[in-house]
Amino acid sequence: MIKTSRNRHQVVIVGAGFGGLEAATHLEGVDVDVTIIDRRNYHLFQPLLYQVAGASLSPSEIAWPIRYLFRDRPEVRTLMAEVEGVDKAARQVILQDGTRYPYDTLVLATGATHAYFGHDEWSKYAPGLKSLEDATTIRGRILSAFEQAELCNDPEVREALQTFVIIGGGPTGVELAGTIAELARGTLQDDFRSVDPSKTRVFLIEAGPRLLPVFPEKLSEYTRRALEKLGVSVLLGAPVTECASDGVMLNGKKLAASTIVWAAGVQASPAARWLDTESDRAGRAIVGPDLTVPGSPNIFVIGDTASSATADGKTVPGIAPAAKQQGKYVAGQIEGLITGARRTAAFKYRHQGNLATIGRSLAVIDMGKLKLSGGIAWWIWKLAHIYFLIGVRNRLSVAMSWVWNHSVGYRGARIILREKASNATSGSLDGKLK
Amino acid sequence: MIKTSRNRHQVVIVGAGFGGLEAATHLEGVDVDVTIIDRRNYHLFQPLLYQVAGASLSPSEIAWPIRYLFRDRPEVRTLMAEVEGVDKAARQVILQDGTRYPYDTLVLATGATHAYFGHDEWSKYAPGLKSLEDATTIRGRILSAFEQAELCNDPEVREALQTFVIIGGGPTGVELAGTIAELARGTLQDDFRSVDPSKTRVFLIEAGPRLLPVFPEKLSEYTRRALEKLGVSVLLGAPVTECASDGVMLNGKKLAASTIVWAAGVQASPAARWLDTESDRAGRAIVGPDLTVPGSPNIFVIGDTASSATADGKTVPGIAPAAKQQGKYVAGQIEGLITGARRTAAFKYRHQGNLATIGRSLAVIDMGKLKLSGGIAWWIWKLAHIYFLIGVRNRLSVAMSWVWNHSVGYRGARIILREKASNATSGSLDGKLK
Repeated sequence: MIKTSRNRHQVVIVGAGFGGLEAATHLEGVDVDVTIIDRRNYHLFQPLLYQVAGASLSPSEIAWPIRYLFRDRPEVRTLMAEVEGVDKAARQVILQDGTRYPYDTLVLATGATHAYFGHDEWSKYAPGLKSLEDATTIRGRILSAFEQAELCNDPEVREALQTFVIIGGGPTGVELAGTIAELARGTLQDDFRSVDPSKTRVFLIEAGPRLLPVFPEKLSEYTRRALEKLGVSVLLGAPVTECASDGVMLNGKKLAASTIVWAAGVQASPAARWLDTESDRAGRAIVGPDLTVPGSPNIFVIGDTASSATADGKTVPGIAPAAKQQGKYVAGQIEGLITGARRTAAFKYRHQGNLATIGRSLAVIDMGKLKLSGGIAWWIWKLAHIYFLIGVRNRLSVAMSWVWNHSVGYRGARIILREKASNATSGSLDGKLK
Repeated sequence: MIKTSRNRHQVVIVGAGFGGLEAATHLEGVDVDVTIIDRRNYHLFQPLLYQVAGASLSPSEIAWPIRYLFRDRPEVRTLMAEVEGVDKAARQVILQDGTRYPYDTLVLATGATHAYFGHDEWSKYAPGLKSLEDATTIRGRILSAFEQAELCNDPEVREALQTFVIIGGGPTGVELAGTIAELARGTLQDDFRSVDPSKTRVFLIEAGPRLLPVFPEKLSEYTRRALEKLGVSVLLGAPVTECASDGVMLNGKKLAASTIVWAAGVQASPAARWLDTESDRAGRAIVGPDLTVPGSPNIFVIGDTASSATADGKTVPGIAPAAKQQGKYVAGQIEGLITGARRTAAFKYRHQGNLATIGRSLAVIDMGKLKLSGGIAWWIWKLAHIYFLIGVRNRLSVAMSWVWNHSVGYRGARIILREKASNATSGSLDGKLK
């Protein structure tokens, strides 16, 4: 067991995403020791992950070493380790190597991963976009498809190589489809001799009746038309029934495509299982009004791995602002506990709005009464994202990357790094290139 | 076979390193078609690779898509493919998948890789630094070692985790040792709670009698003292007799270290084997005064994969400026051939000097009569490297990264990406952390 100072109340936060980071930040000045445990050494700004996949930003522009963010707070300890369980009786977190780490208050903010609705075998053909490795894998596959097309003499194979399928019409799918279409028609337009990048086909496939289902219908329709202007084929009400190395099955027909990206579903991390507590269909731990799990007033679950209700009985959405509000609320609850002024008010979610961007010059914003689409929405989106990035260095760097991308279409991170084992796509098509 | 227009003279350049890129650049305006074949989609600025390994720069800051560099030259075609042989009789390059690609003139500029002097099994314990994946692997191991040390209660294991061994005292070894020492003592100094980064030990091990053997002895000695001031232990005349997951054998004794980097030897790529021509001990193809191989006046070999003699009988060194001079010379030879004014003058190597940098504020420069060390040399080094980077975007980006590193010690790329299979180091030590 790892030793800790037992003089002070020990808060352990598992996961340094938006929720966990916000909790740690708002515990500043509270008389507790804080330990942040994450399996990565960095906090990831997930809303811009699709720009890494699209070769516009490099991984380190949207990632910050967690321990660096807390370097000036000696009471905060950061550990890079994989958590595998919780011993509620002993009040210990269990790490992958069996080490146990004690807590007085536990905050689980472990996020979510992709869900393939019972078809995990699709993951190697249709990677999802949750981690930096996912993003560089998808970037590599997109860029490699064009490289292979340039080598290819068979028009049918070349067409498949220039066909990109994105499954799932939420914000990630919309953003990926827009960025791939612009990559092909803008960034790459002069770079090939045999391939005509304008013949690239990008399919955005959604099982439901419209894109961006959490937005008002009018903005969904705006988004569809805007994407089609960028050259994206939007297929609605079209559930994918199979993913394979050479394409997807759709309405009983094969759509040949060498690159498939999964943006259709998420599955909560196993926090509910660790706690042996009730979860919803997506695996999220069901928490009470104070974000603790039933029977464990010292265990909070927040962010994408929690299912918590809003005042009007809806579920708090799995978006960054919600996780941050919950992190701040939990810090307040802990402060109340320590100072003896324990606040019993329930967590109240304030919905600030939804944003999604369409290519490099349009966006849609739904902030309740204020609904925006087009260029102004895009400017708000950009400024908001620059604002929420951490540190002057990264703000400057991302701003500079965007200026280059928007002015001359240049994307600064068009490099193909070697993938691990599972590049099924290029493997299966290689044979056809001769 | 891939079809090409047979109306014009076909130049095929294999390898888009400094030599290949320079040849293609100087063929502008010459009445030939140019095909550049590289197994990567990018040109890599290798002299700054150690800064990626040291988390100061991100991979895309020192890599440019090859086809982007030639987007304005329609006669230049870029192919991402692995070359596996040359059919001299048929005048064809053979790609990995069996495809054949025809040439009239062939330029082989395929570079070099690490050499383990018959101990290839050491590569998994002591990765070398030649590719971006190498650099991110080494970066990940360095940063992971500190992360594991923070989790570790065993003082002996922690000491091994905080011990870094660099094998080879050439410029790469010197630069890596300096950057790791500064990373530990500067960048990381406030970030840990259990680990004391100042207890980090960095060993630079050289089998020969001095560091930087191609420099004058005085500068070698200056470098040794400067590194020791940064906290590096320089071991000279100390051949490593074994590399393993837990350290190296040296003078019959074990030096326990969890992170080992190989900077000791290079091996030319197999161009000589493809051509069935004579090679030197390092595998470099021996070329004539005009850089062609004996019996094949239409095949040039340049850069690190060629062995060519200087006017005074020495071997042209394997450094970027030499490769660039050769690339330019070859372009001139091809131009002469096409215009009928074939130049028969032999290649003349002009040695412009050697540079190496020691940490983030010192360098050594040997430009013949001009020998410099210290801060002024470092300024020249920085300005030269910024100058040689391609494009305004990357110059600005690298300059900005350096300003941050030098002013506040911040390193912008401190992220640990998942390694492929071979992380023998962390695997072997994991068990000891409990």
